[in-house]
Amino acid sequence: MFEKSTYINRRKALKSKGLKGIGIFLGNNESPMNYRDNTYHYRQDSSFLYFFGLNFPGLVGIVDFDSGDDYIFGDDVDIEDIIWMGTQVPLTENAAKAGVHNTAPFTKVFDIVTKATASGRKVHFLPPYRGENKILLEKLLGTSSLVVSSQASLELIKAVISIREIKEVQEVEEIKRACKTGLQMHVTAMRMAQVGTWEQKIAGTIEGVALAGGGMTSFPIILSQNGETLHNHDHSQTLKEGKLMLCDAGAESLLHYASDFTRTTPVGGEFTQKQREIYEIVLAANNKATLLTKPGVTYLSVHLAAAEVIAAGLKELGLMKGDVKEAVAAGAHALFLPHGLGHMLGLDVHDMEDLGQINVGYDNEVQPVDQFGTAYLRLGKRLKPGFVVTNEPGCYFIPALIDKWYAEGINKDFINFDKVNEYRDFGGIRLEDDILVTDTGSEIIGERVPIDPDEVEEIVQKG
Amino acid sequence: MFEKSTYINRRKALKSKGLKGIGIFLGNNESPMNYRDNTYHYRQDSSFLYFFGLNFPGLVGIVDFDSGDDYIFGDDVDIEDIIWMGTQVPLTENAAKAGVHNTAPFTKVFDIVTKATASGRKVHFLPPYRGENKILLEKLLGTSSLVVSSQASLELIKAVISIREIKEVQEVEEIKRACKTGLQMHVTAMRMAQVGTWEQKIAGTIEGVALAGGGMTSFPIILSQNGETLHNHDHSQTLKEGKLMLCDAGAESLLHYASDFTRTTPVGGEFTQKQREIYEIVLAANNKATLLTKPGVTYLSVHLAAAEVIAAGLKELGLMKGDVKEAVAAGAHALFLPHGLGHMLGLDVHDMEDLGQINVGYDNEVQPVDQFGTAYLRLGKRLKPGFVVTNEPGCYFIPALIDKWYAEGINKDFINFDKVNEYRDFGGIRLEDDILVTDTGSEIIGERVPIDPDEVEEIVQKG
Ligand SMILES: [Mn+2]
Ligand SMILES: [Mn+2]
Repeated sequence: MFEKSTYINRRKALKSKGLKGIGIFLGNNESPMNYRDNTYHYRQDSSFLYFFGLNFPGLVGIVDFDSGDDYIFGDDVDIEDIIWMGTQVPLTENAAKAGVHNTAPFTKVFDIVTKATASGRKVHFLPPYRGENKILLEKLLGTSSLVVSSQASLELIKAVISIREIKEVQEVEEIKRACKTGLQMHVTAMRMAQVGTWEQKIAGTIEGVALAGGGMTSFPIILSQNGETLHNHDHSQTLKEGKLMLCDAGAESLLHYASDFTRTTPVGGEFTQKQREIYEIVLAANNKATLLTKPGVTYLSVHLAAAEVIAAGLKELGLMKGDVKEAVAAGAHALFLPHGLGHMLGLDVHDMEDLGQINVGYDNEVQPVDQFGTAYLRLGKRLKPGFVVTNEPGCYFIPALIDKWYAEGINKDFINFDKVNEYRDFGGIRLEDDILVTDTGSEIIGERVPIDPDEVEEIVQKG
Repeated sequence: MFEKSTYINRRKALKSKGLKGIGIFLGNNESPMNYRDNTYHYRQDSSFLYFFGLNFPGLVGIVDFDSGDDYIFGDDVDIEDIIWMGTQVPLTENAAKAGVHNTAPFTKVFDIVTKATASGRKVHFLPPYRGENKILLEKLLGTSSLVVSSQASLELIKAVISIREIKEVQEVEEIKRACKTGLQMHVTAMRMAQVGTWEQKIAGTIEGVALAGGGMTSFPIILSQNGETLHNHDHSQTLKEGKLMLCDAGAESLLHYASDFTRTTPVGGEFTQKQREIYEIVLAANNKATLLTKPGVTYLSVHLAAAEVIAAGLKELGLMKGDVKEAVAAGAHALFLPHGLGHMLGLDVHDMEDLGQINVGYDNEVQPVDQFGTAYLRLGKRLKPGFVVTNEPGCYFIPALIDKWYAEGINKDFINFDKVNEYRDFGGIRLEDDILVTDTGSEIIGERVPIDPDEVEEIVQKG
């Protein structure tokens, strides 16, 4: 974990936000796979990690906004456990590492919450996303696990976001470490992108690279020669000559900060003419977006600028037509780029998504756009120094979507459907970097994952 | 999945067990990591997989014991989803693969359960182990998620165990596939067992081997030079000269059958004299156990026989004393072997542990033994052809346990504590194989993971 002053300062910042009452931060417990004691890799809740730092199960943190006191509740292990688990550090000592000196056995958390509720104080909590924590909230608050989520505190959500969204220098360093492992994952995948290789073999191997680096993957790996299927976690195919392998994957650092990269690699190591043309368009959109990303601009405007690069490129290839700005305003680019340019990155790959995307990515000034494509943009609001965001334009040929738009005549003034149909089996390309908003502009975090098409070809060919 | 006749026959067997009313089989949903949509590898519930075969989220299966009808409830994806997820097979078609022809949208499961409850029919369900399914049961039955587990049906539990415990030939073939990947994992770990290597690098790499094989690990990998810490998921050390690396790891096959092996490897590739002596004792216990494992004997008796081999060997080395059979009867071996010989293996690494270890491993004839060490034996009952079990004797030097026994004089007539103290920094050795109970005896499943100490040394030395 970081120095204890880190956690003290973060909680201090939280206490300065004007909340009254107490804030409950539920840690995560072990997550059962196929029976209670056969568990997935342990993953602490990110807000708990952020404010209390301790990376093990069985904990609840409480911030008393009125008195300023902090508490951590949890149980020490007994002698029997020590035999099985080895010597364990007592909770008091662990909590001290986070600058928390009020600790008590887990059951005592019921007392403090009950007392607060009974005396009419406001009890704030963040939206639970695991069944186990919904049930724990039912026990704590007496509100059924079926509805308890609806009582999460918007005030606490907004306070937490306002702090977590600005990354400390040491957090950026951690993200850089995650990026380093992410780079190794992607280069490994490129080397393995040979004709006849089973997708799962590659996906599994690069997940192993993440795990061998000390963290886990920051999200389930997307790796497919059907890159046009955006949420594709199917890795059952073998790579075929002439296809593109789209790989969207990242790692967590030891302190659970995320990286998130996408690269698209020609199977066997040679782009076709068609592939290279589209690749260059997506790359130009990516570079343009990094160039435009700086404090004070909205990410919505950067998204739309990247969309314009895509639309202009596709017009040049004869796939789109008409005025580029009008086409983007009408959402015509979304046939090819039906998702947003990017999202915040931090302790979560979609940082703070559990707190609500609308709370993280938008505000009173910049509201979500209700248009197919841009509606999926996770981050629209004005950028600040210290934001870490992903930059991930793409261009896809999704037969079901093409057919739907053609049948319904959607944006027919901007799309040459005849030409588009020649690309039906193209697949998709996405190129994603992780960038830091600096005081004056933005920069790619760490060494850039190979993206130059010649360099990518060479890596595959060398194998 | 297997042929549809497999699932029809398994449900037929279940229906022949004399239950009345309906049986609910909850499938598993996605399991959230750090927010709802960032999920772990999907793992279907094993009993659902066994009786209904379908390996994706959002399903409930119902068996009507009175009418003999089977149902699967779940939702088809809509057009929006197809754009993101690609073309999906309709539920009717998927359910037909399991021989189930009654399908309906998910919400209809509430009707069938409510109707059954209202007409006074018994509603059987298995113990839920994930929070999400406890909450779903609350919705279905109106019983609070806090207490619903206590109403699981012992009748259904026992019926399911009586069927799942006897492995079909095709199941043994799947376990063999999992064993093949497990072998690759262990040989990879042995090759990496060099001085100065980070434990996590090895653990992560061999998890990658499992994933690249198409499955996941069947349980969280145990890999440590502190093998005496039995539940050691800490991989933070670098391997040191003169230590033993204990690795307990296995894979799942594509159909989610498990393997589970333990090997203990000298860091750098050379056993010390002391290490080799203890290794040979554990190996002898392992070989003896396989030899004794056959239909009609209790696994408790095999466990005790293995414990005698350990005790006899330790007596020869001067670590134990007195009569070996008396020592084992007194539980003195448990200072060195404080766990059980093994457990059932199948769709779960501790097969059916969610149904209760006492229901799986014991019966009216053979009851759990209330003595430190043997109390942890997960399988005691009489063996039948078709059982698949693990054979995992070990020998550990656990300083905290040694000190406790010495201080309290536990089994002092059988233990030479002075001599034992010379082994305080020894660590631990465990050697685990997966074996099938045949009609006449037992056999190791698949190619045996290298276990001969000379062969293990050679693998490490070759690197
Ligand atoms: Mn991303
Ligand atoms: Mn085992």
